[in-house]
Amino acid sequence: MNETSLPLESQPAPTVRPRPHIVSVGPAQLGSGTFSVIAGPCAIESEAQFEETARAVKQLGAVLLRGGIWKMRTSHKTFQGLGPASFDFVREVLRRQQMKLVTEVTDPRQIEQIDDFVGMYQVGARNMFNYALLKELGKTRKPVLLKRSFAALIGEWFKAADYVVDSGNDQVVLCERGIRSFETATRFTFDLNAVLVAKSQTDFPVVVDPSHAVGIREYVPKIALAAAAVGADGIIVEVHPRPAEALSDGQQALTIEDFRVMMKQIDGIVTSLGRDMQRIELHA
Amino acid sequence: MNETSLPLESQPAPTVRPRPHIVSVGPAQLGSGTFSVIAGPCAIESEAQFEETARAVKQLGAVLLRGGIWKMRTSHKTFQGLGPASFDFVREVLRRQQMKLVTEVTDPRQIEQIDDFVGMYQVGARNMFNYALLKELGKTRKPVLLKRSFAALIGEWFKAADYVVDSGNDQVVLCERGIRSFETATRFTFDLNAVLVAKSQTDFPVVVDPSHAVGIREYVPKIALAAAAVGADGIIVEVHPRPAEALSDGQQALTIEDFRVMMKQIDGIVTSLGRDMQRIELHA
Amino acid sequence: MNETSLPLESQPAPTVRPRPHIVSVGPAQLGSGTFSVIAGPCAIESEAQFEETARAVKQLGAVLLRGGIWKMRTSHKTFQGLGPASFDFVREVLRRQQMKLVTEVTDPRQIEQIDDFVGMYQVGARNMFNYALLKELGKTRKPVLLKRSFAALIGEWFKAADYVVDSGNDQVVLCERGIRSFETATRFTFDLNAVLVAKSQTDFPVVVDPSHAVGIREYVPKIALAAAAVGADGIIVEVHPRPAEALSDGQQALTIEDFRVMMKQIDGIVTSLGRDMQRIELHA
Amino acid sequence: MNETSLPLESQPAPTVRPRPHIVSVGPAQLGSGTFSVIAGPCAIESEAQFEETARAVKQLGAVLLRGGIWKMRTSHKTFQGLGPASFDFVREVLRRQQMKLVTEVTDPRQIEQIDDFVGMYQVGARNMFNYALLKELGKTRKPVLLKRSFAALIGEWFKAADYVVDSGNDQVVLCERGIRSFETATRFTFDLNAVLVAKSQTDFPVVVDPSHAVGIREYVPKIALAAAAVGADGIIVEVHPRPAEALSDGQQALTIEDFRVMMKQIDGIVTSLGRDMQRIELHA
Repeated sequence: MNETSLPLESQPAPTVRPRPHIVSVGPAQLGSGTFSVIAGPCAIESEAQFEETARAVKQLGAVLLRGGIWKMRTSHKTFQGLGPASFDFVREVLRRQQMKLVTEVTDPRQIEQIDDFVGMYQVGARNMFNYALLKELGKTRKPVLLKRSFAALIGEWFKAADYVVDSGNDQVVLCERGIRSFETATRFTFDLNAVLVAKSQTDFPVVVDPSHAVGIREYVPKIALAAAAVGADGIIVEVHPRPAEALSDGQQALTIEDFRVMMKQIDGIVTSLGRDMQRIELHA
Repeated sequence: MNETSLPLESQPAPTVRPRPHIVSVGPAQLGSGTFSVIAGPCAIESEAQFEETARAVKQLGAVLLRGGIWKMRTSHKTFQGLGPASFDFVREVLRRQQMKLVTEVTDPRQIEQIDDFVGMYQVGARNMFNYALLKELGKTRKPVLLKRSFAALIGEWFKAADYVVDSGNDQVVLCERGIRSFETATRFTFDLNAVLVAKSQTDFPVVVDPSHAVGIREYVPKIALAAAAVGADGIIVEVHPRPAEALSDGQQALTIEDFRVMMKQIDGIVTSLGRDMQRIELHA
Repeated sequence: MNETSLPLESQPAPTVRPRPHIVSVGPAQLGSGTFSVIAGPCAIESEAQFEETARAVKQLGAVLLRGGIWKMRTSHKTFQGLGPASFDFVREVLRRQQMKLVTEVTDPRQIEQIDDFVGMYQVGARNMFNYALLKELGKTRKPVLLKRSFAALIGEWFKAADYVVDSGNDQVVLCERGIRSFETATRFTFDLNAVLVAKSQTDFPVVVDPSHAVGIREYVPKIALAAAAVGADGIIVEVHPRPAEALSDGQQALTIEDFRVMMKQIDGIVTSLGRDMQRIELHA
Repeated sequence: MNETSLPLESQPAPTVRPRPHIVSVGPAQLGSGTFSVIAGPCAIESEAQFEETARAVKQLGAVLLRGGIWKMRTSHKTFQGLGPASFDFVREVLRRQQMKLVTEVTDPRQIEQIDDFVGMYQVGARNMFNYALLKELGKTRKPVLLKRSFAALIGEWFKAADYVVDSGNDQVVLCERGIRSFETATRFTFDLNAVLVAKSQTDFPVVVDPSHAVGIREYVPKIALAAAAVGADGIIVEVHPRPAEALSDGQQALTIEDFRVMMKQIDGIVTSLGRDMQRIELHA
C-alpha cells in the first residue's frame, strides 16, 4: 500500500475502492469467495473457558477465534473484561490451539499493548464513529474488522472504513451487526439489505455478526444461514460452553452443540450455491 | 370456525393461537412445511401482460399468482390500477391458466366486487392498521395475506391478525415486507428478525415480500434466498416480462430470467435443509 | 374551490399549494395567525362526561371540542367507542354548549352517519395512508384534520392532504402527533421539526396533538407550550375530568386544573411573541 | 465530591443522582433556574473569525463561547479543525473577551493539551459511547457537556453520564441534539420529549443544541424557543458572522442578526414563564 502511506494531502481523492481484495488472517482468506466462520466467547473469562471454546470451535470448522479482552458495556458497573491480566494466558492459548484472535479495542492506547498477539483488530459498533481510534488502526499492520454502528447510514460505514484505509491500512473487513429501529421484540434489527449494498458497492469483505444482530440464541443460527444464503464472506459468532454462566451476553451465545448443527446447515447452503466453506487443516 | 363466529363479547380471551394451521389456497398449502412461491406483476396492466406473466411464473414453479387491481400509491397522480375494468379478463386469465389470484383490497366496499374470483385477499402495509377493513375481511370465507405495516411493532401485526381471526376468519398468512428505519440506501429495511419471531410466536404461516423489502431488483433474489434459508413458508414476489415498461414498481420487478435463476437457487437451499418446494403439477 | 371540483384528469398538476388559506370551524379561524385550542376527552364515554368536559374546556378558552365516537385501538378487545348509540346525546350536548365537534372517522361508511353534526372530521394516524377514506372525505363540505401517520415521511403527509384537496375539499388542517423512533421512554417521539417544515412548505394550518406526541400527562403541557413557541396554529389536546376513570388513554389526559394552568402559560407565550389566542365570546 | 474520587470498587452503587446540582462555568450557573445561552462558531477558523463572533454573541447575551478545535467529520477529506495551531490565539481571545470556552474533545490524549484554557469539555454525539474518553473526562476538574448520541436511548445517555460521574467528576450537563429517525426532511429529529424526561428523571442541567437538532438555519431559532418554553436550562447554538463562508456546518449557523432576534424572543418567553435569562455584566 505505497500510495496510502503518502501524506494525505498529496493524494488524489480515490473515485473507486483501491482494488478488490482478499484480507488474510491466518488461514482465513476473507473476500476470496469461500465462507469463513469466526467464533468464540463474547468475553475471555478465564484460561480454561477460553481454551475449551477455542478447541471446540476449531474442531467444528471455525477458522478464527473471537474473544473480548476489554468489554464495552452500557453500564460501567458490569463486567468490563479481564484486560491486561489476560495477556499472558491468551498468548499461550493462541499458540497451543494454533489460532488467530479477533478482539476489540476501544482506546487508541490499547493497540500497542496487544499488537504482538492480535490477529485482527475489531472496532465495535459503539466506536465506529471514533475517528481517533480508526486513524490509529490505520497505522497498524494488522487487519481491522469494522462493525457498523447501530446508528450508521451505510454510507457512513464506508466512510469510516476510509478513515482506516487512508491512514495506511487497507486490510478492512466490514461487519453488519444490526441497527436500531422502532422494533423492540429483538434487541437490534438485523439489516440484511446492508450486507447486499456493501457487497455490491465496495470491494471489502463483508461478514455478519448474527449474535448481536438478533440477540436471542434461538434465532442466531437462522441469521447465520441467511448470511450464507445471500453471499456474505462469513460470520463472527458468539459461542460459550455454558451460556448460562457467561459473564456477558449469555442470552445470545450458542452452545457448542448449537454451533455444530449450524455449521452443518451453513455447509449445506453454501455448497448448494456452488461455494466452499473456508477450512483449517486439522492435524490429529 | 364455530367459536369465532360467536359475538365477541361472549368469547373468552384466547391465550394461545387457535391451533397450528395450514392455509390452503388452490395448490398452495401455506404452513405445511413446504416452501411456496407467489409471483406476478405489481399491477395488472393488460390482459396480455397479465397472462404472459402468469404462464411464465407457473411454468417456473409459482403456485399462486399475484397482481394488483387497485394500487395504493403515495401520490394520487400516479397509476391507480385498472379497477373494475379488468374484472372480466382477470377471470378469464385465471380460468385459462388454472391459477388462484392474490390481490389487494383497500376499501371494505371492494370485497364484494371481487369475492367470486379472488383466491386470497391481500392487506397492504398501508392498511394493516385499517381495522374497518380487517373486520370486513374477517367476514369473508377467503384467506387473507396480512402485510406488516412498515411502522408496526411485531406485536401490533399479530393483533391486527386477531382482528381478522376474531371476526370469523382464521385463514390468515403473515407477510413481512420491510420496515422504515433511518437507513435510506434501500427503500425499506427488511426485518428478517421479524420473520423468526412470527414463526416462533404464532402458528400463522409466514411469508416474505422481497420486492418491497429491499426495493432494488438486483437484491430481490437474495432476500428470497434468505427467506428460504431461515424457514419462511414462502415468498410473494413481483415479476414483470419487461420491467422497464411497468406502470408501477418497475425498479423492483424481476425479469422472467431473474425469476428462473432465483427459483433454482431457492430449490437448492430448501433441499439442503431437508424441505421441499411446493409444486403444481404441470400438464403439458 | 372551483378548480378542484373539476374531474382530476382535466386539471394541471399544481406546482404550489392552492393559496394560503384559513380553515374556519365555528369560532376557530385556523391559519389566521391566532392560536386555537381544541380540547376534550379521548373518547365520548357518556353524556355526563362529555358535557362536563365540554363546559369546562370552553370556559377555560377552548374554541373547539374533541371527542371520539369510534376508537381505533390496537387490540379489538379494548373499548371501541360508543358509536351510533351516542349520536343523539352528542347532538344535544353540542347544541347546549354551542360548540363544534372534531371527531375521527375510520371507515368511509361512517361519514354520512355523522355529517349533520360534525364540525371537522379527524383522520387518525393509523388511517393517514387509507386513501379510500381520504378520497371520501374530499367529497364532503366539512374541514378535515389530517394527523400524520407515526411512520409517514413529511412529504407523504403532504401528499395525503392532496388526496383530500384534489377530491374536492381544500379545508385541510395538518396535525403532528409524534412518530415512531427507536426511543421507548415515551410512547412516540414528538417531531417538532415536522411542524416547522409543514408551516414553511405548505399553506395548510398546522396544529399539534401533545397528548399522543408524548403520551405521559406530566409532559403534555410542555409540548403544548413548545407548539405555541414555534408558531403552530393550535393544539388538539385530551382532557378528562377524572383521568383515572377514563376508558381510553387516561395516562395522557389532562385534568381540568392541568388544562387551566397550561392555558395561562400558552397565553403568556403567544402574547410575548405578538400573537393572540383565539377566543370564544362567553355569554354569562 | 469526595466520595466519587474514591476508587470505584469501594463505592456503593448510587441509587439516586448524587444531589440536585448547579454546574458553574464562568458566569453561567447551569441548573440554577436561569436560562443560559452558549454561542459561537461550529469551528474556530481563524483568530479574526473567532474573536468577531465572541464579541458579538457576548454583547447580545451569550454567557459562554462555543468553538471547535478538532472537528469530527464523517469524511476525513473535509476540514478537521485547526487543532494545536490555534491554541495560542484561542487563549488570547478568551482572555481579551473574558469568556469561557466550551469545546469538543474526541481523543483521551487531547485533554491534557487544552486543560489549561478550556471552560467546559464537550463530548459530541459520535463519542457518547466512547467510554474510554468518558472515563478520562471523569478525572478532570472541568465540567463536561455530554451530547446524546443520535442513536442513544435516553437511559443510555444517563448511563454515559454515570461513566463520568463515577470516575470522579459530577459536573455533567446533558445536551439533546437530535436523533436519527426515518424522517429525512431534516438532518436529525429533535427529540423534545427527551429534554422533558431528562429534566424529570435526573438532576443534571439539560441544554439543547438547536443547530444540530434541525440542521437548517431557518428553523434553528424556533427550536431554541421551544427549549425555552419547556424549561431547558439553556442552549448551545452555532453562530457565524458570514455563514456562507463557514468551513463547516454553514447551513445551520445563525447570522449575528438571526441571533439578536432569537435572543429577544427567548427573553420574552422565559420572562412570561417567570424565569430569567442568565446574564453577564457588560462593562463598557
